[in-house]
Amino acid sequence: MREISTLSQQLERLSNYVFIFVKEDGYMSYKNYPMVSRVVFGRGSFNQLEDILQSKRLNVKAPFIFLVDDVFKGNSWLTSRIPLAYHDKVLYISAEEEPKTSQVDELVEQIILGHKDHPSGIIGIGGGTILDLAKAVSIMLTNEGETRNYQGWDLVKNPAIYHVGIPTISGTGSEVSRTTVLTGPNKKLGINSDYTPFDQVILDPELTNGVPKNQWFYTGMDCYIHCIESLNGTYLNAFSKSYGEKAYDLCKAIFVDKKLSKKETQDELMMASWHGGMSIAYSQVGVAHAMSYGLSYLLGTKHGIGNCIVFDHLDEFYPEGVALFKKMKDIHNISLPKGICANLTDEDFDTMIDVALGLEPLWENAIGKNWKNIITRAKLKNLYQKM
Amino acid sequence: MREISTLSQQLERLSNYVFIFVKEDGYMSYKNYPMVSRVVFGRGSFNQLEDILQSKRLNVKAPFIFLVDDVFKGNSWLTSRIPLAYHDKVLYISAEEEPKTSQVDELVEQIILGHKDHPSGIIGIGGGTILDLAKAVSIMLTNEGETRNYQGWDLVKNPAIYHVGIPTISGTGSEVSRTTVLTGPNKKLGINSDYTPFDQVILDPELTNGVPKNQWFYTGMDCYIHCIESLNGTYLNAFSKSYGEKAYDLCKAIFVDKKLSKKETQDELMMASWHGGMSIAYSQVGVAHAMSYGLSYLLGTKHGIGNCIVFDHLDEFYPEGVALFKKMKDIHNISLPKGICANLTDEDFDTMIDVALGLEPLWENAIGKNWKNIITRAKLKNLYQKM
Repeated sequence: MREISTLSQQLERLSNYVFIFVKEDGYMSYKNYPMVSRVVFGRGSFNQLEDILQSKRLNVKAPFIFLVDDVFKGNSWLTSRIPLAYHDKVLYISAEEEPKTSQVDELVEQIILGHKDHPSGIIGIGGGTILDLAKAVSIMLTNEGETRNYQGWDLVKNPAIYHVGIPTISGTGSEVSRTTVLTGPNKKLGINSDYTPFDQVILDPELTNGVPKNQWFYTGMDCYIHCIESLNGTYLNAFSKSYGEKAYDLCKAIFVDKKLSKKETQDELMMASWHGGMSIAYSQVGVAHAMSYGLSYLLGTKHGIGNCIVFDHLDEFYPEGVALFKKMKDIHNISLPKGICANLTDEDFDTMIDVALGLEPLWENAIGKNWKNIITRAKLKNLYQKM
Repeated sequence: MREISTLSQQLERLSNYVFIFVKEDGYMSYKNYPMVSRVVFGRGSFNQLEDILQSKRLNVKAPFIFLVDDVFKGNSWLTSRIPLAYHDKVLYISAEEEPKTSQVDELVEQIILGHKDHPSGIIGIGGGTILDLAKAVSIMLTNEGETRNYQGWDLVKNPAIYHVGIPTISGTGSEVSRTTVLTGPNKKLGINSDYTPFDQVILDPELTNGVPKNQWFYTGMDCYIHCIESLNGTYLNAFSKSYGEKAYDLCKAIFVDKKLSKKETQDELMMASWHGGMSIAYSQVGVAHAMSYGLSYLLGTKHGIGNCIVFDHLDEFYPEGVALFKKMKDIHNISLPKGICANLTDEDFDTMIDVALGLEPLWENAIGKNWKNIITRAKLKNLYQKM
């Protein structure tokens, strides 16, 4: 919870927000969240991108930069609809690895050196990796120094340039969140700021047509785990709860009940991702995310599958959530990798534990204010050893 | 659905929106909805009003005008927390009757004559009646002529002045909608416009403490009926559906399952109203609202109870929704007035039917494009006669 003394300034500065107030020990404290202010939803709505960008072009020398998942390279169904003009540029980016602070620095340098003017905007087209890169690049184009210096909470000083998020896989919640999670030299941690959220989001379920099944499951589970962590967290409030419950119900309908058509499944999972993202925006994630950041930092494990690997062992913290997760794994014949920590050294474990324990708000949400009494290094090591 | 040709202009003009795109017969059509851009939620968050208004004061001569439900007159728990300064004014307003266009005209005249400068803002504190008046007054302070001329869709030319909505009863969805429903000399119809939604909403469930039980039920049912009409409408889309389903589930937990504490019930009903309002914002209401506008226009029936009286007879259109409604009535020992149309003349019925049939988008949503073949004057008369 941030200090209440700066409320008036914050209220004035932000044009779109939800503030959640909570009474604690007689005092009011609050959390504020900027909202994505412009959303377009619907099958085929990707075709509106040209209209949307039209009024946002600063001048003919200021290009739009499209960061596009390289799985779409050569896929003219999508790429032919990217509206290019003047000096606009498509940069294809691999999402094989989790996004890095150094990668953001390189992209920013490439964009600045390659164009006379600052871009009119950054458009991310892809999954959580591409969307997080788009958010980070748009921030770093207007903020000095290295990206690693902005990992944390509210360290960004200047508004980002105009940025648009277009998810092509559902579940990460990156389209709605106020963070962009990056692996830096010292830690895996998001740039959490009021300037992080997209100015515009296009939710076109058709774009998720080609997602491979395993990835569909892992990324969908990212949403499911968001709900479990939010709904079982100490930060929970009625606002967050209603979004989390809805996303949870949608996940159940999609991954357990399986009564929906393919199109309905795509539509509903995109909405689940949205609502799940809204839920954690107004509360916080928990144990699975904290520990999965450790895995990802050390081993480069992708976020979706990393969450699944961790969550599978968290029945102590989320008994019902984990039981239903195991059921969903069975229904969809998903077998998770095993023994990924088998050959790690004590130093490796220490590294992962350091990254995980650094995410204090996540632990406080999951366990409560006294979390340091409960979450010991030994306990985390024991859990990691099972994975 | 509005014409797609104006999309670029609309996209540029609105700073907060959701656009829902739908493919029909191979063509894309869309609906756009401005969003409430600033929301504060939490028990006791009404105390933040002073901070919120601080930066919005134009100058010391430009007052904030507080439209307050007169049930709060003398209730210092609430009134002492209304932050008055300079020439700010509280106008207590009765919500006994549905809001009228003439009432808006009078309020606007009173405000203009009573102050040298245009107000800094209008703050509505009350139920749907007060909130709708606050929205309408804020529009009419910047738009010429009489309020009646703006009843309809997208007739407002100039942005409204800054306006804040603070609900003290939950269910109407007025806090989130792009309409303000008014009874005019010729019709009961909303001012539907992009300028109608509040600039700021404060959702403080504590403010609903003193609501009498019957009114609590009727207004809660307004929300429930929003969900049924939205979820069973032809305008339904995945966006609207997810909000409608959530509000429906919350209504069931509140009015059927009854396992929540008093505080939880207040919190959850305020969220239900929000989600229910979001659902109809992205789709439309239906038969109950259309017919209840008729009742209200002729007999002055308040919106909440009017919806209930109508909905009780709509099992032909909403069989499951009406069955559950009857169950909720039983659980809460609610007995609705009967025979309110018993002594009406043929002319009276014609008047109600004219008002109801005038609401074309509601019928199209409820029945489909061919609704005129199904909804005859005789059918509506027959239904009204049962009430």
